[in-house]
Amino acid sequence: MSKPLILISNDDGVTSSGIRKLVELMSQIGEVVVVAPDGPQSGMGHAITVGDTLRLSRTDIFGGIQAYKCSGTPADCIKLAKHEVLKGRKVDLVVSGINHGSNTSISVLYSGTMSAAIEGAIEGTPAIGFSLCDFSWHADFSHVDEYVLKIASQALKNGLPEGIALNVNIPPKQNEDIKGVKIARQANARWEEEFDKRKDPHGRDYYWMIGNFVNHDKGEDNDEWAIANNYISIVPCQFDLTGHHAFSHLNEKWDL
Amino acid sequence: MSKPLILISNDDGVTSSGIRKLVELMSQIGEVVVVAPDGPQSGMGHAITVGDTLRLSRTDIFGGIQAYKCSGTPADCIKLAKHEVLKGRKVDLVVSGINHGSNTSISVLYSGTMSAAIEGAIEGTPAIGFSLCDFSWHADFSHVDEYVLKIASQALKNGLPEGIALNVNIPPKQNEDIKGVKIARQANARWEEEFDKRKDPHGRDYYWMIGNFVNHDKGEDNDEWAIANNYISIVPCQFDLTGHHAFSHLNEKWDL
Repeated sequence: MSKPLILISNDDGVTSSGIRKLVELMSQIGEVVVVAPDGPQSGMGHAITVGDTLRLSRTDIFGGIQAYKCSGTPADCIKLAKHEVLKGRKVDLVVSGINHGSNTSISVLYSGTMSAAIEGAIEGTPAIGFSLCDFSWHADFSHVDEYVLKIASQALKNGLPEGIALNVNIPPKQNEDIKGVKIARQANARWEEEFDKRKDPHGRDYYWMIGNFVNHDKGEDNDEWAIANNYISIVPCQFDLTGHHAFSHLNEKWDL
Repeated sequence: MSKPLILISNDDGVTSSGIRKLVELMSQIGEVVVVAPDGPQSGMGHAITVGDTLRLSRTDIFGGIQAYKCSGTPADCIKLAKHEVLKGRKVDLVVSGINHGSNTSISVLYSGTMSAAIEGAIEGTPAIGFSLCDFSWHADFSHVDEYVLKIASQALKNGLPEGIALNVNIPPKQNEDIKGVKIARQANARWEEEFDKRKDPHGRDYYWMIGNFVNHDKGEDNDEWAIANNYISIVPCQFDLTGHHAFSHLNEKWDL
């Protein structure tokens, strides 16, 4: 029986240690092809490159693994992989990450890691974005192996419902031992931005965005709770944004 | 009674005729403040600028209207507007657009127009993204006034459920007269990408992304059907991506 075909991307770029860990683990359970950004693409959300050109070139950074770096966004990488690199070969699993930093709660919207996974799901492929809740470039990924392998293997074995990609967040290494895995909902939390206003050497103003993460969600069934209590969180994410609960408000209260 | 405060952004940039139309219309019903990208940001999805600086400068392009151009994404514009321009003043409505081109179905994920609206909703403000289903830079917006004013006025009067932004798409001018407005769900359609591979003057490969929109959705309650039948579509969009219907699959079929 041939090995499953696993497509890997990320948003921290092809040289990050998070994607290296993912390549190492996925190679144990499948044939791996990597198409990842040639530099950092954090915060790119579900951006695609429509008004500019794209570059794609082979890299031997992972030894014998078929790997490419791409000038585009994570979503671009998945599209280019499927159509140019794999030429329509059936992909069995898309995995993205492992992100250096958490993508819990509202951060899923801004996450390039998850946009690669969601792009996989749009094309009908089981897809998972993995994130480690540690923003350091030198983050310790040594505790993730068992869980990443188990979750990816379950996706290969049991599939995922149509229109769903998984958002998996893993507590940082320095916490106590991981207690297990929780299927969770997206917490109702958000970033409250501030801007650090500075003057450039020419006397003109510029800004750095900084933010404070504020969690107003008191529930124990969400991803923030899971991570805070040292569980791995798995949020099934959908790309159908329709808010069906809003139909009655619009139909009853609005006069159109 | 003071006029409601309406914040306007878009993704085609501050010089587009779509935002000019929106400024003209919103000025009839509120005090308008514009913070919009200084150039095209189409396809930016929910990107934010985290690894680079942001510029923000006043522009008199709309005469007496308080307006700024920003080097960032549409989501950046809303964040900067609320925190730096309006310094925490309560915004009554965020409107984005009018986009030159449709944002129906799956395009909502890639849409900078909608990311500005969703950013408004995240901050608890009623928010609407308007798109005209005509990609031309010289698109004719002369037929939209009545509908844009009505929809924005209803949002100011009746509000929106928490966590919801509206995705409004308007048929192009060249179609027959608009039949009315449909509250719709996001159609189950997607882009099938192709890549146009070329060689640059130095002999190196590059790609242009091109795509064909494929609609597999046979329903008559979705945004694609509405536009195809010359109705304005309004899809209530949520930023909680949790796919609750996937919980049973994960809890019953997966062994974690």
